[in-house]
Amino acid sequence: MEDFWKDIYTYATSWVKEAGEMIKDSFSKELLIETKSNPNDLVTNMDKDVETFLYEKIQETFPTHRIVGEEGHGTDVTSAEGILWVIDPIDGTMNFVHQQRNFAISIGIFDQGVGKIGLIYDVMHDELYHTIRGNGAYMNDIKLPMLTESPVKEAILSLNATWVTDNHRIDPAVLSPLVKDVRGTRSYGSAALELAYIAAGRLDGYITMRLAPWDFAGGLVLIEEVGGVVTNVYGEELNILEKNSVFAGEKAFHKEVLQTYINKKR
Amino acid sequence: MEDFWKDIYTYATSWVKEAGEMIKDSFSKELLIETKSNPNDLVTNMDKDVETFLYEKIQETFPTHRIVGEEGHGTDVTSAEGILWVIDPIDGTMNFVHQQRNFAISIGIFDQGVGKIGLIYDVMHDELYHTIRGNGAYMNDIKLPMLTESPVKEAILSLNATWVTDNHRIDPAVLSPLVKDVRGTRSYGSAALELAYIAAGRLDGYITMRLAPWDFAGGLVLIEEVGGVVTNVYGEELNILEKNSVFAGEKAFHKEVLQTYINKKR
Repeated sequence: MEDFWKDIYTYATSWVKEAGEMIKDSFSKELLIETKSNPNDLVTNMDKDVETFLYEKIQETFPTHRIVGEEGHGTDVTSAEGILWVIDPIDGTMNFVHQQRNFAISIGIFDQGVGKIGLIYDVMHDELYHTIRGNGAYMNDIKLPMLTESPVKEAILSLNATWVTDNHRIDPAVLSPLVKDVRGTRSYGSAALELAYIAAGRLDGYITMRLAPWDFAGGLVLIEEVGGVVTNVYGEELNILEKNSVFAGEKAFHKEVLQTYINKKR
Repeated sequence: MEDFWKDIYTYATSWVKEAGEMIKDSFSKELLIETKSNPNDLVTNMDKDVETFLYEKIQETFPTHRIVGEEGHGTDVTSAEGILWVIDPIDGTMNFVHQQRNFAISIGIFDQGVGKIGLIYDVMHDELYHTIRGNGAYMNDIKLPMLTESPVKEAILSLNATWVTDNHRIDPAVLSPLVKDVRGTRSYGSAALELAYIAAGRLDGYITMRLAPWDFAGGLVLIEEVGGVVTNVYGEELNILEKNSVFAGEKAFHKEVLQTYINKKR
């Protein structure tokens, strides 16, 4: 069984690296950019090309595995049965377009809904965050230590300013006191990288009100492997097939925030 | 005259690189951490060591130059006469401590108050943003193009969530509409890097309500070299010897934000 997952992991990491090369090469060419649901939700030809590349590799090598991807593959997947790949070919497309950095390829692989492999590849910095459940998490060759307790007043929280201004998803009064009480807040514009940063201990928490499964699937497996917690913003379990709010963090921080800030205000 | 500044620039860049090596080496040792004015304003022995290193090099090589640094050198400097070095040995100390990345060494060199040299060194990514006024700005060997017009609705703004929650410096209602209207917001926790990102076209604007001269001196020179604007949040000229609010950005974005969002609300 161990070898079974190691085999999948070996293929997945080599494809992710290859996809990274495709993306790097694309910066010398002109990118075509479309908008998806709204003008702030950009999509480029690279998003599609990378997803298609990964989709074809998986289908060829593991024909029984199922695939859900941001760019439309696997829209018919309605249950988490069997082995399921949840893929974001370019997480942080706005950064990809504007910055040509700070984006990632994210893959989570699940067995009957349980996370088995998590991969997040920061392409431009050539940093691959990776884990096979139960075998430790790594950034490239460096083993990531288990997360250590972080009280709110010493924590760095990743939170976009949107969630403390008027918006349709959360009363700005809920999270504003938390912004004041943490040591600092950050926002990087790529959920996958923000989750990888938590796994690496560089952030203590990340809160956002709307993510799709492909945005958090890889990060979920990585964070759980180092003892962190990933739930929705109210502390409830995530559904790997649906859009959710997401609250990821070090365990003690996660608990303190739910008790002192979020659940009080519900 | 050209050679005069090139000479200073050559020394400055070599010292900055050397200081970067000192910092990288320090990660294998235990860091001592103090707090400055408040618990969120951290300072480490490395901040002090790097500033002393740079201070001694400058004094030795250019004994007539004056120096202002974050860690206490040049507290007696009360005018911008002559040649003035404005130094932040580690900008983004909280990132330095928590993340061991996303911090920078920042140096601005001024002649009678006019910016002549700007250096920002992203140590961990080995990216040096540098300029000699009138000779173009660079990231390592790559020339940074002049900034191109960016309307608010297509812009990425760097703004910490603090400034749209209750705080002592600005009514959250002033900047909240801007957060909703821009394409995206980010926050990296290092003013120097945020300013370097503007110079590189990766961000279109950066607003913060309180910076010291050493936080913005290097970035100011870099951004002006690529046609951007750096003022206080109300569009007024910065004083290089005093704490200020800072609003840096691409020219058209800067103008639109002042007219449509900030000056309306004063």
